[in-house]
Amino acid sequence: MKHNFGAGPCILPQEVFQEASQAVLNFNGIGLSILEISHRSKEFEAVIAETERLVRELLAVPQGHSILFLQGGASTQFAMVPLNLLPEGGKAAYLDTGTWANKAIKEAKKVGETVVVASSADANYSYIPSAYEIPADAAYFHYTSNNTIFGTEIFDTPKSTIPLVSDMSSDILSRKINVSDYGLIYAGAQKNMGPAGVTLVIVKDELLGKTGRTLPTIFDYQSHIAAGSMYNTPPVFSIYVSMLNLRWLKSKGGVEVIEQENIIKARTLYEEIDRNPLFKGTAAPADRSRMNVTFVTEDKAHEAAFLELAKERGLIGLKGHRSVGGFRASIYNALSITGVNALVDAMQEFEEKNK
Amino acid sequence: MKHNFGAGPCILPQEVFQEASQAVLNFNGIGLSILEISHRSKEFEAVIAETERLVRELLAVPQGHSILFLQGGASTQFAMVPLNLLPEGGKAAYLDTGTWANKAIKEAKKVGETVVVASSADANYSYIPSAYEIPADAAYFHYTSNNTIFGTEIFDTPKSTIPLVSDMSSDILSRKINVSDYGLIYAGAQKNMGPAGVTLVIVKDELLGKTGRTLPTIFDYQSHIAAGSMYNTPPVFSIYVSMLNLRWLKSKGGVEVIEQENIIKARTLYEEIDRNPLFKGTAAPADRSRMNVTFVTEDKAHEAAFLELAKERGLIGLKGHRSVGGFRASIYNALSITGVNALVDAMQEFEEKNK
Repeated sequence: MKHNFGAGPCILPQEVFQEASQAVLNFNGIGLSILEISHRSKEFEAVIAETERLVRELLAVPQGHSILFLQGGASTQFAMVPLNLLPEGGKAAYLDTGTWANKAIKEAKKVGETVVVASSADANYSYIPSAYEIPADAAYFHYTSNNTIFGTEIFDTPKSTIPLVSDMSSDILSRKINVSDYGLIYAGAQKNMGPAGVTLVIVKDELLGKTGRTLPTIFDYQSHIAAGSMYNTPPVFSIYVSMLNLRWLKSKGGVEVIEQENIIKARTLYEEIDRNPLFKGTAAPADRSRMNVTFVTEDKAHEAAFLELAKERGLIGLKGHRSVGGFRASIYNALSITGVNALVDAMQEFEEKNK
Repeated sequence: MKHNFGAGPCILPQEVFQEASQAVLNFNGIGLSILEISHRSKEFEAVIAETERLVRELLAVPQGHSILFLQGGASTQFAMVPLNLLPEGGKAAYLDTGTWANKAIKEAKKVGETVVVASSADANYSYIPSAYEIPADAAYFHYTSNNTIFGTEIFDTPKSTIPLVSDMSSDILSRKINVSDYGLIYAGAQKNMGPAGVTLVIVKDELLGKTGRTLPTIFDYQSHIAAGSMYNTPPVFSIYVSMLNLRWLKSKGGVEVIEQENIIKARTLYEEIDRNPLFKGTAAPADRSRMNVTFVTEDKAHEAAFLELAKERGLIGLKGHRSVGGFRASIYNALSITGVNALVDAMQEFEEKNK
């Protein structure tokens, strides 16, 4: 038994893999692979419609917000957001909480005036800045809700009089959010939604078409809304597997239920990190992510040995990002409490061995 | 036994589906799904490296041309090509041979001056214009090598003193091309390369970085070249399945061998269309596509009945695009001569029935 703590593309439920594997041979018993059906077939029309319905239901997306399945990941959204929402001559506001926030800021600066309201770069992004003001005359305020690399997460929606835009790539569908608080939410699928290759965008329709900018059709959200995410050939298989995964989430009881599981998983692991004298967390306790748990050994010499032990126990993908070092346990929706317990056991075994 | 004549996403070899299905459960025996491995893992690094090597070998891509695996399909390339190759104040030249060429032209016009050198719109794109001049002072000349909807194909590389750019989405890897004749080639994978979700770009490095235009990082070919197609999370599964399909093509003997098969398949089908008094082709004989064979019934009243007969015989995806009507038999690499013979048999059976 392996437990996949990889940061993404990452673990999905075994039953999703089983059903996806079958569909690659014979989709829904029609005698064709999911990989060879037309995106204009009634079979795929049903898939994309169900995927959209599941997102709308699981996240309680209100009317007036469109749901899109695009390609190109969050990195494409870093450019599309300012191209679509930042008017000529206007400005946008960003919160700098790490590598991905920074990349989003870099792309916004190419499009127009970009104000960084606060940054935690001073402490290697180990905390979330709290004292900042959002300029009321900016077109939108952008923040990254979960910082995969640095293991921090923003749980409370910032108070804002201007539209909120959030990169939720690594915590979407892991906890309840109030979508109507947001002008735009985007998320690369490859954490809690599905495999790599598809990007979820939820956008409030009334914000669009107001920049005065001529956009390439493919980078204009309105083209995709008008075409129901079929302006061009969509990533059929990635959407299909996302549908399977959303069905799984619904069958578990939805976002509220998985959120409780995620709270328990994170608490279990952080408690061990705090208790075990050989390890320490890297993120400020108040801002600790429930998705990516970053920690290091107190003694740097122990690092390789613990990774080796973990590997022997079938715990994989634990090596930390080079920006933080140590370990990163990504405990997304599909990583079970059994997996977390196996990691805690390994940490305790390691403590015994090094007494 | 079904024969899938769909225009795309479309048929791939059965052995590719078998191996892909297995990899969704357990990739290369590592105990993990291909859907849950990191794109930074050594396993996926090997996949993308082999995919690139296979493209370079099968198409004899010369040094100085980079091979990229991107997202967003040809529709994204319609914008990226002028953004990257059309200098501020310069102009580009395009050949209008149908729907997709038109979409490319529309996006180029948003970027800069765009000259349409010729069009076959006057005859519903049933032929390829031959008498045109390519302006020597344009930055590049763009054409669509195969017109999926109208069933025409350009076999001879246009003579040009300026860089050639070609959308080869629907005939790449179906016949030999001389890549060094081109400045840039792009192709959505979902015909002869792999499943939907990945786009092949082959670009001559020395053409890049000369427009004087600031580009979003994600739309700049140079970002993707510098990162070996891993600037952002690539579409892991679509690239993996493309690798399997390229391996299959290599094992068959490569592009030269498949080209001979494709010639025989197309000839067999066109001969029946020309012989059978109930059917007629829609494209000018000299410009008939080897990939998408468009034809209609002489008597419009026969159309539905033939589609019904074809369906009974397991021949699917034959309904023509609404722009042309009638039928379209897409006979890509993976559609066997057996499939073509089954279609010819059905056409002869239909002739017997309607004597």
